[in-house]
Amino acid sequence: MNEYIRKAKEEAQLGVNSHEGGPFGAVIVDKAGNIVGKGHNQVLKNSDPTAHAEIQAIRNACKNMGTHNLEECTIYISCEPCPMCLSAIIWANIKNVYYACDRKDAAEIGFRDDAIYEYFSGNNKQILKIKQINREECLDIMQQYKENSGTIY
Amino acid sequence: MNEYIRKAKEEAQLGVNSHEGGPFGAVIVDKAGNIVGKGHNQVLKNSDPTAHAEIQAIRNACKNMGTHNLEECTIYISCEPCPMCLSAIIWANIKNVYYACDRKDAAEIGFRDDAIYEYFSGNNKQILKIKQINREECLDIMQQYKENSGTIY
Repeated sequence: MNEYIRKAKEEAQLGVNSHEGGPFGAVIVDKAGNIVGKGHNQVLKNSDPTAHAEIQAIRNACKNMGTHNLEECTIYISCEPCPMCLSAIIWANIKNVYYACDRKDAAEIGFRDDAIYEYFSGNNKQILKIKQINREECLDIMQQYKENSGTIY
Repeated sequence: MNEYIRKAKEEAQLGVNSHEGGPFGAVIVDKAGNIVGKGHNQVLKNSDPTAHAEIQAIRNACKNMGTHNLEECTIYISCEPCPMCLSAIIWANIKNVYYACDRKDAAEIGFRDDAIYEYFSGNNKQILKIKQINREECLDIMQQYKENSGTIY
């Protein structure tokens, strides 16, 4: 068993033992092989639907490293990341992802990861109603940012 | 202009003025029309790639309301949510989303929202490498959760 997947599973076990959320854990490893961040699902403990293992691990690694850019890092997760977490991994510039259980295993125990993937595939659109309004009235703030800041990330 | 979109834009302006991150703001409104959460992009200020406006607003609303379940709420955003934020909205059980600018406008000023949507559509797969390993060794923790907890959310 991969040593970092084992660590991710240990994180998941911590969360399950303490009833902090779902059975999911993650660790982030730098290019030297050091664990620079870790986390487990704490949705229930924190009353925070975004407190998935990967988000917690990314926030932890960024805090430890003082950057929002984890481009040299790899993430190991006890279960496949949901679209929220996979997108967070992309925003963090992490390029390599290893996971153990998958979205179908998560569905088996009642989680909606697979349903959310379906939404992004163009199915399951009834999951929410989304509508664009007032675009013209808000475009100026985008332009303002481009002119004044120009920070691309 | 919708009053809540105006508030979301004001949030975005706050972030731009203070250089805390991208030009994005969000407010969350309960069924009585009260603003129960708000946020703007603070990726740079917090060194946190997950600190998008919607994530900050969801965390703020959940803290204010003492729950991870915002099913009676609507979110108003100055720009279309990226897949991370849209998934967070789904996990929070928010069913109604209004946004002003969109993913193409965000791409115009250098943000990767559209590229991440493409990834979930089955294109742009080079954005990261993802691999499943050690599933069999981790399945037991999923089963353990199902037997001992059974909390579905």
